[in-house]
Amino acid sequence: MRSILRSTALRSATRASRALPTCYAARHYSIRTQAASASAQAPLDASKLQVTQTTKPKTFSKPEDLVFGREFTDHMLTIEWTESEGWLEPKIVPYQNLSLDPATCVFHYAFECFEGMKAYKDKEGSVRLFRPDKNMARLNKSSARIALPTFEPSAFTELISKFANLEKDSIPNQRGYSLYLRPTMIGTQKTLGVGPPGSALLYVIASPVGPYYPTGFKAVSLEATDYAVRAWPGGVGDKKLGANYAPCIVPQLEAASRGFQQNLWLFGEEQYVTEVGTMNMFAVIKDKATGQKELVTAPLDGTILEGVTRDSVLALARERLVPEGWKVSERKYTIKELADADKEGRLVEAFGAGTAAIVSPIRKISWKGEMINCGLKETEESGEIALRMKTWMENIQYGDEEHEWSYRTQA
Amino acid sequence: MRSILRSTALRSATRASRALPTCYAARHYSIRTQAASASAQAPLDASKLQVTQTTKPKTFSKPEDLVFGREFTDHMLTIEWTESEGWLEPKIVPYQNLSLDPATCVFHYAFECFEGMKAYKDKEGSVRLFRPDKNMARLNKSSARIALPTFEPSAFTELISKFANLEKDSIPNQRGYSLYLRPTMIGTQKTLGVGPPGSALLYVIASPVGPYYPTGFKAVSLEATDYAVRAWPGGVGDKKLGANYAPCIVPQLEAASRGFQQNLWLFGEEQYVTEVGTMNMFAVIKDKATGQKELVTAPLDGTILEGVTRDSVLALARERLVPEGWKVSERKYTIKELADADKEGRLVEAFGAGTAAIVSPIRKISWKGEMINCGLKETEESGEIALRMKTWMENIQYGDEEHEWSYRTQA
Repeated sequence: MRSILRSTALRSATRASRALPTCYAARHYSIRTQAASASAQAPLDASKLQVTQTTKPKTFSKPEDLVFGREFTDHMLTIEWTESEGWLEPKIVPYQNLSLDPATCVFHYAFECFEGMKAYKDKEGSVRLFRPDKNMARLNKSSARIALPTFEPSAFTELISKFANLEKDSIPNQRGYSLYLRPTMIGTQKTLGVGPPGSALLYVIASPVGPYYPTGFKAVSLEATDYAVRAWPGGVGDKKLGANYAPCIVPQLEAASRGFQQNLWLFGEEQYVTEVGTMNMFAVIKDKATGQKELVTAPLDGTILEGVTRDSVLALARERLVPEGWKVSERKYTIKELADADKEGRLVEAFGAGTAAIVSPIRKISWKGEMINCGLKETEESGEIALRMKTWMENIQYGDEEHEWSYRTQA
Repeated sequence: MRSILRSTALRSATRASRALPTCYAARHYSIRTQAASASAQAPLDASKLQVTQTTKPKTFSKPEDLVFGREFTDHMLTIEWTESEGWLEPKIVPYQNLSLDPATCVFHYAFECFEGMKAYKDKEGSVRLFRPDKNMARLNKSSARIALPTFEPSAFTELISKFANLEKDSIPNQRGYSLYLRPTMIGTQKTLGVGPPGSALLYVIASPVGPYYPTGFKAVSLEATDYAVRAWPGGVGDKKLGANYAPCIVPQLEAASRGFQQNLWLFGEEQYVTEVGTMNMFAVIKDKATGQKELVTAPLDGTILEGVTRDSVLALARERLVPEGWKVSERKYTIKELADADKEGRLVEAFGAGTAAIVSPIRKISWKGEMINCGLKETEESGEIALRMKTWMENIQYGDEEHEWSYRTQA
């Protein structure tokens, strides 16, 4: 691949206005916006897509041997951006290495953000995406927060649709299989000066993946982490930035060294429950007085990733569980509240929620030498809600249930 | 450059033990360590260095036209690491692009950390480093915190010395000029699974730089940032991770859009002063009762970068200012304390401290519509201590004063 870098003009004073993070700052701060310099930049234009097909198609492992994010399809979607020109023409090219100067800002200052989404094949063989508008909106928020460019959501969705269709044959024809799509944006300017990148690359790679639980659910055990903090108010924990991930590995390894599959992130002196590993966290608690069942997850207070699966679980719960008498809450809750509920037999179940697994049932949580049991019998691997949610979501994702969340792509 | 990637074996359960972050966790948590798997890995060995010189030497801009971090020398130092083999043989090769798979973990999860240090030419023409042991120790801490490998500090210092000597001719023969060195470590495993990288690349690039203030000090104006937070207790703000930098740009741009050169980071409801842009912050305050002058900077509580210049300023102040009657303090102080001191004529001066500028005098700070004047007369661009510190530090860095901090390299 030719160098994706271009020499860029010296930053001018007006540079600051380009990257003003409207979506970030609007809630916090009154800022002036200047559209003048932005208007000269080309918008992302899906109609300009150029496709160069590979001459050496790959063969994949057997579906049952696929490992998440290890094997990639024959092509990749790439779109360069420069401060002076805006978005250049989108390209689908054979999957290939990126050639980057060692001074490129992505290597030094973590100018990088990404999305995780999946393409599903329905019974008719059409390729469907799941709520791509949510991924587009979040990527734009993430990007703006680190002074990378934003884009027209519908244009990028169209490009991803074309890309997913080109790679259609790599999606195994079996329920539970899909094509994991990884839209990624990196800053590509080659300078060690700490400032807004004058060039960027938006790209998408695709990895065929099997069901997260090929032989049915497998409940995980967690260790509550109270010596490290994932996110904080005024920080960037609600954005899907690379910066939020590398610092999570050590607590994950710590938990693993004591036999736990994942760690549970707590926040503050109150030890609020926030997220589980890289997933949002849900719990089902029975009310002490009334016995009413409540599905609870932490609110979007700036420290919680705005998960698409999180949002979908909440929406489905409000639509389908509330009529059954359930309470659905986005509220702060502490690990002690879970521990107390367990002791009193009121902790019904708990699960993580994310794109890869949809839901990941939790068996127990180690906290300060105490073991919190999350409502599963020894022979059970999932609670009722985790199972129902997975079924509901997959029915929509694979198009068995027609739903506005399912986006039928066009080649 | 050939692909720096190697296929790595599937992670085993014992993988967790390799990356246990002893230097990180020791202070917080009691962890088991297992040296067994690590012992099979090769240590970093400077004696195995292979040098391939360029056949196309570059020409640089005139010294006075050099811009920080824009032009790089003819070569780079690279050392690959793999989980199974440990550190491979170090190489000095012609400066060239890195060729990386688009799924490489550095692009997605910010597995990256770095150092900033300088090589100076003394009167005899020898190349000197400044306190390289501090950079080595900090890079190892940063690296361990994100599950990247650590290395033998003296071996890497020796390699950097050889590299700096090879590039000696790119250091202009003028006081104030130096060779900025950028040791960088990135995770190179190509998988989207979120886990400890099974391979990494440690590399060093070098950029000839001129004096930060070519025509003498130029005091900067700051905007105090209270809508975004740089670091948090239990976070990674004290490590030199890429992850700490990209999220800082927007507040910097916000400040710039209102005419301020940099932003000042505050923390908590108390609005403690923490750092200025990407530098540590110092202030000189006179005691209300006694009139004693105090040089104050925030303590290393986990939210403050452990700056080498910060440490040097403190050490020189303790050695040379305390005998003059000064007080030197690492303690928490609030922006209100600075504002009050200004109102009462007790704020003597303030400056940032970092490798690039050594010290950066501060004229004023905008805070909640108030303007804090930091003790400079309109005709002044620096306070007394900033000037003395710069002189003391440069005398040591350029070898005019023999000092244990100055490390004479060997070719």
